[in-house]
Formats: sequence, structure tokens, C-alpha cells
Amino acid sequence: MCKETDFNTISGGVCAAQGFRAAGLHVGVKTHNTSKKDLGLIVSDVPCTAAAMFTKNVVKAAPIHVTKAHLAQGKVRAIIANSGNANACAPQGEENAEKMCAAAAKAIGCTPEEVLVASTGVIGQTLKVDVIENGVPELYGLLEHSAAGSDGAAHAIMTTDTVKKEFAGEVIIGGKEVHIGGIAKGSGMIHPNMGTMLCFITTDCAISQEMLQEALQEVVHTTFNRISVDGDTSTNDTCCILANGMASNKEITEKNDNYVDFVMKLHEICYLLARSMAKDGEGAKHLITCTVRGAASEEQAETISKSVISSTLTKAAIFGCDANWGRVLCAMGYSGEKFDPEKVDVAFASDAGEILVCQQGRGLSFDEDLAKKILTEDEVDIEITMAEGDESCTCWGCDITYDYIKINGDYRT
Amino acid sequence: MCKETDFNTISGGVCAAQGFRAAGLHVGVKTHNTSKKDLGLIVSDVPCTAAAMFTKNVVKAAPIHVTKAHLAQGKVRAIIANSGNANACAPQGEENAEKMCAAAAKAIGCTPEEVLVASTGVIGQTLKVDVIENGVPELYGLLEHSAAGSDGAAHAIMTTDTVKKEFAGEVIIGGKEVHIGGIAKGSGMIHPNMGTMLCFITTDCAISQEMLQEALQEVVHTTFNRISVDGDTSTNDTCCILANGMASNKEITEKNDNYVDFVMKLHEICYLLARSMAKDGEGAKHLITCTVRGAASEEQAETISKSVISSTLTKAAIFGCDANWGRVLCAMGYSGEKFDPEKVDVAFASDAGEILVCQQGRGLSFDEDLAKKILTEDEVDIEITMAEGDESCTCWGCDITYDYIKINGDYRT
Repeated sequence: MCKETDFNTISGGVCAAQGFRAAGLHVGVKTHNTSKKDLGLIVSDVPCTAAAMFTKNVVKAAPIHVTKAHLAQGKVRAIIANSGNANACAPQGEENAEKMCAAAAKAIGCTPEEVLVASTGVIGQTLKVDVIENGVPELYGLLEHSAAGSDGAAHAIMTTDTVKKEFAGEVIIGGKEVHIGGIAKGSGMIHPNMGTMLCFITTDCAISQEMLQEALQEVVHTTFNRISVDGDTSTNDTCCILANGMASNKEITEKNDNYVDFVMKLHEICYLLARSMAKDGEGAKHLITCTVRGAASEEQAETISKSVISSTLTKAAIFGCDANWGRVLCAMGYSGEKFDPEKVDVAFASDAGEILVCQQGRGLSFDEDLAKKILTEDEVDIEITMAEGDESCTCWGCDITYDYIKINGDYRT
Repeated sequence: MCKETDFNTISGGVCAAQGFRAAGLHVGVKTHNTSKKDLGLIVSDVPCTAAAMFTKNVVKAAPIHVTKAHLAQGKVRAIIANSGNANACAPQGEENAEKMCAAAAKAIGCTPEEVLVASTGVIGQTLKVDVIENGVPELYGLLEHSAAGSDGAAHAIMTTDTVKKEFAGEVIIGGKEVHIGGIAKGSGMIHPNMGTMLCFITTDCAISQEMLQEALQEVVHTTFNRISVDGDTSTNDTCCILANGMASNKEITEKNDNYVDFVMKLHEICYLLARSMAKDGEGAKHLITCTVRGAASEEQAETISKSVISSTLTKAAIFGCDANWGRVLCAMGYSGEKFDPEKVDVAFASDAGEILVCQQGRGLSFDEDLAKKILTEDEVDIEITMAEGDESCTCWGCDITYDYIKINGDYRT
């Protein structure tokens, strides 16, 4: 099991890279709790190359349409994002998203097209854009190139998240110190398909737009697209990265060694963010890591692993610390993939040990007390071995709990 | 909204048809509660034409393999079924399923191949087949051609079900009174794909095997395959029908008017059984009926409707009586179907009234008190209108509750 502590991270989040400032503020989009920040801003001192990925949900929130259009214009200076309202299926959606960009642009002194926008929260209600417009000047004044600045922005995009998701790292590229940092938010309606709820990454790496988009797609595919909280793919999923080139490395314009180094570090940051989203899934008590080995292809391994982490019954069993591996096999079986169930082994593992519970598709008699002890840990692994080939894949999910029902039984009102 | 009371049903369940006897008994498969029946038997006085449909899960329980093989042999006299153990991924699975058939055959005086077998319960544990074998003679002695007999069998296949699922009806075919009756069990791991958890139907109609299989497929497709409790397709789904011809109608051998009359009545019984399974989903407090109108095709309407009733977030909102229609639109959007979200209307309805909450893809301001009142009813409709075409489809599901988590957090131990 990979732990957060296995990685070399640095502080600073989206402000770890040179030339990025960030801040968060409560402006009044969230009406119930005035202590909770609801507007965040990330600004680069110089224009950035940008790349992004968005939800594949047919129903897309207004800020996604606006951000796409702005990205098509070229360089980017900033990202403005609010929580408390998704600005999806809402009256004047695009108009209000444009107004957010315009307000940020005015403060920064750039064009509205140089600003990207994202929203998260309740679907279908009109965005109170005036409180955002009124709040931007103060928010702009709070911008800091510091860990505190990133912390503010990370908190400003949280909805039901209980912990902020923020990681950064550094890597030497062409003799230059390059920084990559990101913030993200979960924690319900999480079953990303080409992006995640909201994730903003900054880097001072010099890299072409084409290579940046390529790197982001490659990494998102094996990180955010491999987590699930509740199987619900949101209308607002957005993952974007800004690269301002201030590390002064030779610009990456092809898939050379520098590109590989960049992708590896980007992968690490996105992996940590994705994992923390799964771990902080709404109401979750357990992070579930499901690894499928011996698959015919990586795609097969991924489909089966996703089916297991998305199974409501498997999630409920893990919540109950019940080694009910039959539900794991059942979820594998309805994944849509063909395989020989008579050649499947299933084990549960955690810091408390590892236990094989199913061999060759049949139940083993095992130490129930040890199994319970293993599953009582916060982070639990489901290890599946098949005999179809040599490919493997790991996906991340969480258990389903009373709190998930509580949070989502009365989210809107 | 269609209600149970809209239908003309009769009593008797699987004993409504002439020549069928049934019974249920506690023999000891369920060890925790000796008052709960765990073995059921349905016997026809004469050999029956039989048809069946099974789970599409790659991981299939042993009794499914055995039942398939027996069906291929021709006529059928009986069905034996236990609850408390699914006999799936369990040691000696097929051997034990065959032993169940042999025990029943011995009591009845037929061949083991004339007996079908089904199991439901925990996956992966060895079936205590000896207690079943020892119990069969007593069970056989309890067989009755009566409502009490069907009641016994209906209870014997229940696991976490809180109410028995049993319906019967009669229809005149070629001047003869034909009876159709069925029993079924839910209530978790329910997301049938070509069959349902367990459903046994008997009829005294004279009908060829080919027409019987055709009728069953047609009906299952629009009833059991349109419900979902938790998105988990079981390893044991089995729906079978026995037709003993004792109504003495002219045998149905082609798709004539008699066939249509038979299918209509069969549809009614299966509809009622399917609906009662959704309503009694594990821990459920609400039956959710989702109708999609104005779709380009019935398939599109079905895919979208199923996506909505399967959405964990929508289910949690209905549990909380929260008119969070944004989740309905979101679930439509990730269904995989293409449609114009700007032309979607959503309304909630129940015995307490009807309220339009989203028009042309945008939220309406609506009476929150009325919405809450509507959603507080046990049976709630989600009415979706699109502008893609003239096709429609209805699917049934239930809300997700604290009790679902409780039941499934500790099901096995």
C-alpha cells in the first residue's frame, strides 16, 4: 500500500511554483455559514500556458462552457472559483460565469478571456453573482505567494470536504528546479470521467500547450479517473493546470526525458490529490484501494477494479469491517468483463496484516478476528489476482456510511 | 401512478393455478433465527413445460448451472429453493445443488432432472446440504394446494425482505380460466439483468416451451429488468415459470390472441412482483417510479430512467424528501445517452400532488413546502419530459437509507 508519507512533497500548494499568488474569502455565496470561504482566486504574475479536462456528463455547468471558450483564446492569467453554488442548470448561467471572469480581470488588469472560471455546490439555483463581484477587490488584495495563500484558495472550493486537498512537489528538469502544486475538492458526486470535481494545478515549468495538455490527459487517466465516491459523475468536473514558465527550464516541446520527469512529478501530485478525495469521500470512514493483477489488459483490470470500488454492497461491507469477499466477486462478475471466476484469488490487507479469503473462486476458512482487525484500519486494500494475463490496475474508493446518507438526504435545503 | 389496487388479483400465489402444491419450512440453513423458514418447495401434480432466465453476472451460482442443465432435459415437476446461503463460489457447489434436486425427486417420485433448484443468501460459504436433505421429507408432507402453501414457499425464499412478494391473477384463454401466480424475493443486490434475484411463477396454462420462454423474456425485459435497489447484479438471479396445462385450454403454440392475453396477464403479475421488490428494497422508505417521456427510443428512455433510479445521490435526496432535481438532471447526463439538457422538464408527484421543478433545463422557483409534502409519501414519481421523440419508459427503484447501510454493513457475520 502506498502511503502519503512515501512521497517527497513540499508545502505551498498552488503557490509552490514561482510567480503564483492565491487567496480565499467568504463573500456570501454560502449563506448558512459565514465562517466558510466560498470564493477563491489563483493568479500568475505572467501569462500561462494552460490545459484542462472536463466532465463527460452531457449536462455541463455554465462555467465549463465559459472556461473552454477562454482556453481557446490562448494564454491564461488566473482562475476564479466559487463553492456553494454549481452554476449548473441555473438561470443566466453563462452570463454569470462571464461576470466572474470580468470581475477578476478588472482587479488583475488583464482581459476576461485570460481568466478561467469554475463553480461547485448546489445545481439549479441562480448564482448570486453580485456578492462575488463585490467581493473580488477584497479577495484580490488578499493574494499571497505563500502557503497561506494556497490554503485560502483550497478552503474556498470545499463543500462537504472535511479536509483540504493540497499537495506540491519539486523536480529538477534540465538543471532547473521546477515546482508543481495543486488543490482539489471532493467529496460527493465523485466518479470522474475525464477530470475531477475541481482541481487546479500550477507549475513554473516551461512547457508547450500541446505537451501540457498531453501530460494532463495522461495523468488524469490514471489518477482522478480511477477514483469513485458514489458513482455519480458531476456536471462540474474540471481539472486545469497553469504553467507560467518561471522556472526558466528549456521549454518542453516534445516527449523527451524532461517531459517524462515532468509527467512523473505531475502524476505524483495528482495521485495524492485523487487519493485524498477518495479518502475524504462524503461520510467515508475507510479509504479502499482495489488492485487487480493478472488481467488480460490494463483496461480489463481498470473496469473490474472500478466495479468493485463502486459496488454499494462492497462499500457497505467495508463500512461494517465485514470480510464479505462474495460481494467483491459479485461486483467483478457484473463489471462487463469476461474472466474465469474459478481462477480468482481475493485478499484483504492493511497495516494490521493481510489475509487471503478466496482462492480459485472458492471461499477459504479464515481467521475472522484477524480479518476484522485488518478491516478496522482507516486504509484498506482489496487485492484481486486473476489468471487472464499480466496487466494490473489500482483504483480508489471509500465506504458508504450513515453519514453519507445524512449529508445527502438534506444537502440542498 | 399505477397502484397495486389498480389490478385485479386473486389469492393463492404459486398455488393459484390448478395442480400446484407448495410449502416452506425451517430446516437449519439459517442458523441465527429458527423461526424463519429457509427451504421451499413447489410441486406440480403433472410434468410442466418450463422456461427460465438467469443473471448475466459472469460469476454464477452453482444452482444456476444445475437448473440450466435440468431445463435442457425437458419437462419439469418441481422447484426446490433455500435461503440463507447462496451456494455461490462455495465448495462443492454443483454437487450440493444436485443433492437438493435428488432429495426433492426422491420425495416426489420423479427424476432429479425434473427438479429445478435455486439458492439465495451469503456468497462463498459451504451449503449445509445435509440439513436440507434431512428436511425434505417433512417439507414434502407439508405441501398444500392452498394460499397457505404458497405463503410458506414465499416466506422460505426471503432473506432481508420485510414483506413477502406474492401475486396471482386469472385470465380467460380460449374460453378456459387460466391462472398465473408468482412469488419473488428481493431485496439487496438487486439490479437484475435478465432475471431477478429469485422469482418462481406457476400457471395451469397449456403453452409450448418455445412460447413460454418467449413470453417470459418479453415480460422480464419490461418488469424485473427495470428495477434497481442498489445497482448490484446478483450471482443468483433466477426467474422461472412452470406451466402444467391443467387449465385445458388449447395449447398456445404461436403468437396468436391467446398468446397476447397470456403475456398481458403474465406482465401484470411480474409487474406487481417487480414493483414490490423495488418498494421493499433493503432499508427502503420510498418506492421511486421514474418515467421518461419524449425520448428518441424506448432504449434511450430506459437507460436514462435506470440511471436516475440508480443514482445514489438521487436516492439519498428522496430519502431526505429533498426536491433536489439537479441530481436527476446530473444522473440523466451521465447515463451515456445524448440529449439536449435545455429541453428537459422534471416534476415530482405523489398522492399529495404534483410539482414542476425544472423547465427547459433550468430551475423554477417552486413551493418548497408542497415539494416536501409530495416527497414525504411512500410512493414517489419522478416525471421527466424530453424533446427527443415520442418514446417512453418507466423504471422502479427505492431510496437509500441508514437501514440499508446497517443491513449491509454486517450481513455476513
